[in-house]
Amino acid sequence: MARVATTEALRFMTDCLKAVGASAKAAQQQAELLIEADRVGHPSHGLNRLEFYINDILSGDCKPNNQPQILKENASTAWVDANCVLGATASHFAMDIAIKKAKTTGVGWVTVKGSNHNGMAGYWAKKAANEGLIGMAFTNTSPLLAPTRSKKAALGTNPLSVVAPAADGEQFYLDMATTAVAVGKIEMQMRKGESIPDGWAQDPSGTTTNDAELAFKTGCLMPLGGREETAGYKGFGLAAMVELFCGISSGAKYGHHIRSWSHQGEGGPANLGHCFIAVDPENFAPGFGDRLTDSIRHWRELEPADNSLPVLAPGDKEKKAAQLTDSLGTVSYVKQQIQSSQALAKKLQVKPMEIVN
Amino acid sequence: MARVATTEALRFMTDCLKAVGASAKAAQQQAELLIEADRVGHPSHGLNRLEFYINDILSGDCKPNNQPQILKENASTAWVDANCVLGATASHFAMDIAIKKAKTTGVGWVTVKGSNHNGMAGYWAKKAANEGLIGMAFTNTSPLLAPTRSKKAALGTNPLSVVAPAADGEQFYLDMATTAVAVGKIEMQMRKGESIPDGWAQDPSGTTTNDAELAFKTGCLMPLGGREETAGYKGFGLAAMVELFCGISSGAKYGHHIRSWSHQGEGGPANLGHCFIAVDPENFAPGFGDRLTDSIRHWRELEPADNSLPVLAPGDKEKKAAQLTDSLGTVSYVKQQIQSSQALAKKLQVKPMEIVN
Repeated sequence: MARVATTEALRFMTDCLKAVGASAKAAQQQAELLIEADRVGHPSHGLNRLEFYINDILSGDCKPNNQPQILKENASTAWVDANCVLGATASHFAMDIAIKKAKTTGVGWVTVKGSNHNGMAGYWAKKAANEGLIGMAFTNTSPLLAPTRSKKAALGTNPLSVVAPAADGEQFYLDMATTAVAVGKIEMQMRKGESIPDGWAQDPSGTTTNDAELAFKTGCLMPLGGREETAGYKGFGLAAMVELFCGISSGAKYGHHIRSWSHQGEGGPANLGHCFIAVDPENFAPGFGDRLTDSIRHWRELEPADNSLPVLAPGDKEKKAAQLTDSLGTVSYVKQQIQSSQALAKKLQVKPMEIVN
Repeated sequence: MARVATTEALRFMTDCLKAVGASAKAAQQQAELLIEADRVGHPSHGLNRLEFYINDILSGDCKPNNQPQILKENASTAWVDANCVLGATASHFAMDIAIKKAKTTGVGWVTVKGSNHNGMAGYWAKKAANEGLIGMAFTNTSPLLAPTRSKKAALGTNPLSVVAPAADGEQFYLDMATTAVAVGKIEMQMRKGESIPDGWAQDPSGTTTNDAELAFKTGCLMPLGGREETAGYKGFGLAAMVELFCGISSGAKYGHHIRSWSHQGEGGPANLGHCFIAVDPENFAPGFGDRLTDSIRHWRELEPADNSLPVLAPGDKEKKAAQLTDSLGTVSYVKQQIQSSQALAKKLQVKPMEIVN
C-alpha cells in the first residue's frame, strides 16, 4: 500500500478528467465523488474507477460538456435526460431538483436517463441529508445478478441508498448493492487463495460455488439472501425494484439491455438510469432526528454475541473510515493501483500522483 | 385441511368483527384484507390473524369506530393519526390520500401513527397499482429481528412492498419481510421435525441455529442475508429503513419501543406506524408498462439451473395461488385453524364457518 495526500489524489483525478476534455467543474465534481469513496473505505468506487470514466470520454460514449435537461416536470417529479454527461454532473443536476421540490411540496422524485456510472449511491442520498432531508438514490448497472433459479445474470448489482439526518451529529447511512456482495469481494478472496461462502456467486451451472476463482470468471452474482431457501428471491425482487425506479421509469437502458461491464467502455453509450428522492421529514411528526438518534444509539448498545464485535449502526463503518482518512490526511492505494495511475498520468500527460511514502 | 367457500370465510370474519362492535364498513374492509392473504397463499396473514384483532378490540386497545385524521399536510405529503382504528381502516384512509396526491403532484407520501397491524403490505401497494400508479407500503411490527452481531431483537420483520402496473395484464408485485423468513416458516419446519438452514434464526447465544424448535422458542430472526459474511447487515439496514419511514417519521412507537407480539393483545395500544407511497409513472418516460412487461417476461424465460424449477417473476407465486383459489371458489385451512374459528364463533355468538368438505 502507498499513501497519497487526499488533496493530491483529488488533484490528480481532476487533472486527468480535464485532460480528456471535461470542463473544470465537471472534472472537479466527478473527482470529488471518487475521492469520497476512497475516503469512506470503498476503494472499488474511487480512483479504481477513474480509467473507466476516462475511456468512456475518449470513446465518445460519455460527453462531459453536454448539459442535462428536464424533459417533463410536475410539482414533485422531474424526468431528466442526462445527455451522456458524467454521472456526477447528471446526479448533482437531478438531486438538486429533488431537494428543491422536497422543500416545497414535501417530496421530490427525479428519474434520469442517458447517464453514466454515478459512483457510490450513498454520496447522492447524503447530498439531500445534508439539507436536512431524507435522501434516497438508486441506479441500475450492467447485468451481474442472477435472478433466483436462473443460470445467468439479468439485472445489475443495482444499489440503493437511504441517508437521513439525526440529532446530536448522528446520521442514518445505508448504501447497499442488492447482490449479496460486490465482485471486488470475490476478487479479494481469489487473490488470497481463499474460498467464498455459499450464497455469494454461482458457477456456470447456476449452483452456488465456494470457488472464488470460478466465481470471478463466471461473473454471476447471487442476490442478497443467497439461495432460494434463504430467500434470495427477496434480493432479486429488490434489484428489480431498483430497476423499476431507474431504467424502467426513465426510459434508459434497463436490465438485460444494459451493456456489459468493462473497463474498455465497449458497447456504445451506457445510457444508465438513476432515481433520486428527497423527502422533508418536517412534514411528519416533530422529533424525527431525536427518534433516529435514539434508535442508532440503541443498536450500538445492544449486547453482542461476540464481545469483540460490537453491533454497528448502518454507516458506522464508513464513518470510522472517514475519520481515519481525515486524521491522516491521506488515502491508501494498492501498488497495482498506483502503477496504473502513473501509467495513466503518462498517457494523458498529466502530473503524476505524488506518493507520501 | 378443510375447504371453505371464499365468500363464506369473508362472511365469517366480517361477522366476528361486527360482533365485537366494529361498524359494517370497518369489519368488511378488515375481513377483505384477511381473505386476500388466504387467497394469494399467505395464510399466516389471513384468518389466522383474526383473533389477534378481535382481542385488541375486546381489550379496548383497538377502537374500530374512531376516525383517522390528518394532522399535517403538504402538496405531496400527509401525516395521519389513525386514532387506534383497525389497520385496514387506517390504511385505506392513508393510501387514498397518497393516490390522490400522486395524481396531482406526481407523488403522495403518507405516514401514519396510532395504528394497528395492517396485514399484507402488498395489499396496500396494490391498491395504488390498481389506479395505474407505482404503489409502496411499509409497516413496522413488534421486535423479532436481531441486528447483525446482536444477541437480541431490536426491530420488527418490517415488510416493504412495491407493486406496479405493467402492460398486457402483467403486474410487478414485491411484498417481503426484511427478515430472511417469517416465524411461520420456522414453525412449519418444527412441526415436520425438520431442521432450518443457516441464516434464518438465532439461538439464545446469538449464533445461527439449525434447530427449528430452539429457533421458535428463542424468537430471534435473522435479517435478510443471514450472517454477517453473507451480508445480513443489509437486511438489518433495510428493516431500519422501513422503521425510518414508519415509526420514526410518524411518531408512532418504533423499534425496541413496540410491544411484544402476542395473540392476547397485552401491552396497551400497538401504536404502530405505516408509510404509504404512490407515484404516477406517467410523469416519466412513456412506455413504462411495456418495459416492465418486457422485463417480467424476460425473467420468466431465463434458462433455469434446474429445469423443473422455472424462474419466477416477483409475484408469480401469489398470482398462481390466487388463480387456484378463484377457480375453486374456496380457501383451505388446517384443522387447528378451523377448530379455533369454531370456538371463536361460539364465544362471539356468530354463525360458525360452513365447511365444504
